[in-house]
Amino acid sequence: MTKKAIVLSSGGLDSSTCLYIAKESGYKLYALSFDYGQRHRKELEASEKVCKVVEVKEHRILSLPKPTGTALTGYGEIPKGRNLTEMAEEIPVSYVPARNTIFIALALQYAEEVDADAIFTGVTAIDYSGYPDCRPEYIEAWQKLINLATKKTTTGGRISLITPLLHLYKAEIIQEGLRLGLDYGMTWSCYNGGEKACGKCDSCLLRLKGFKEADAIDPLEYE
Amino acid sequence: MTKKAIVLSSGGLDSSTCLYIAKESGYKLYALSFDYGQRHRKELEASEKVCKVVEVKEHRILSLPKPTGTALTGYGEIPKGRNLTEMAEEIPVSYVPARNTIFIALALQYAEEVDADAIFTGVTAIDYSGYPDCRPEYIEAWQKLINLATKKTTTGGRISLITPLLHLYKAEIIQEGLRLGLDYGMTWSCYNGGEKACGKCDSCLLRLKGFKEADAIDPLEYE
Repeated sequence: MTKKAIVLSSGGLDSSTCLYIAKESGYKLYALSFDYGQRHRKELEASEKVCKVVEVKEHRILSLPKPTGTALTGYGEIPKGRNLTEMAEEIPVSYVPARNTIFIALALQYAEEVDADAIFTGVTAIDYSGYPDCRPEYIEAWQKLINLATKKTTTGGRISLITPLLHLYKAEIIQEGLRLGLDYGMTWSCYNGGEKACGKCDSCLLRLKGFKEADAIDPLEYE
Repeated sequence: MTKKAIVLSSGGLDSSTCLYIAKESGYKLYALSFDYGQRHRKELEASEKVCKVVEVKEHRILSLPKPTGTALTGYGEIPKGRNLTEMAEEIPVSYVPARNTIFIALALQYAEEVDADAIFTGVTAIDYSGYPDCRPEYIEAWQKLINLATKKTTTGGRISLITPLLHLYKAEIIQEGLRLGLDYGMTWSCYNGGEKACGKCDSCLLRLKGFKEADAIDPLEYE
């Protein structure tokens, strides 16, 4: 029987690569996206494009309450031009309280409903913005919780939380996506959600650095 | 400074008692309820009544996607007349996939937003329906995840997941609530959400048994 995976899909570079990796690993794909009032709603359109091309079995977009206290939903300015050391040392104002925790909790419900074997998330702890809910120890704690949390996982079944990008540099992620035929022109990373990508927020900076180091060309247009 | 607590409030017997306990413990209360399409929406009205009387600082009611695969949202019949052994041995069809995991994840976001010190949930692993997401090991795994999940908890702060009812018999919970002045006539437990409580679902049966063993009178009317 074909294995099934819930894949968290934001339309960004990482989660789109993750969809392609899950596909290559032989899973039937169930994509899950969230509308939580983020500035960069172009993400959701990007996610729909990628999900269509990678031929997911189903794509759910759930609406969530808009969190306060984060620049990503309009509370404060998105930081510009931070360098990697700053990113590694300080959690920025674009941090969304408990975001990945909420996303994975809802993915877990979806996983039980369709009897999925795995949840894929494209979190990465290298070339990242210093968010606590992207680190390996956080993911390990989640797996332990999952093992105790559901009917399926407490009656002999397993739901694996799979993070194929966790220890990859952005350049390596891009190389992997290109190898799998992913057109990064469909994806959207910029936090600001303007007509063109800003090129200055953490997300753009990490993406541009990744393409440069991968010796590849980013098909997106920048301001 | 007054400590703050998020309290998950369903309008039921357990979570209402939990609100009173958190109040007595000196916390400023932020109640959190969910509308997920449950049959027993009278819960939400009950929750509003209790929150008003116990004088919460704020009461949020969040709408969530309606989960499939559970009798609580209309997929299948609510079981009737199960005995305690059956409840202890088999997870019933009223189980909602990943429900408490989603609730606590959203409580965690709320806790970060208002800088709360604790999250109270009225889960109990005695006189309960056998749900996996009510057991002590599940709660312990959640605390470990919380410690790694947020900006607050990874930069020196703490958010404690407090479960004052976890090891109490239903009768003890009721005695505690009565001592604290809780009028259980405001609360609603029945899964069926009819005009009067059905008296036959797990939730009614556990409640009735609790009042009997507490040698107290349940002010609710039953069919």
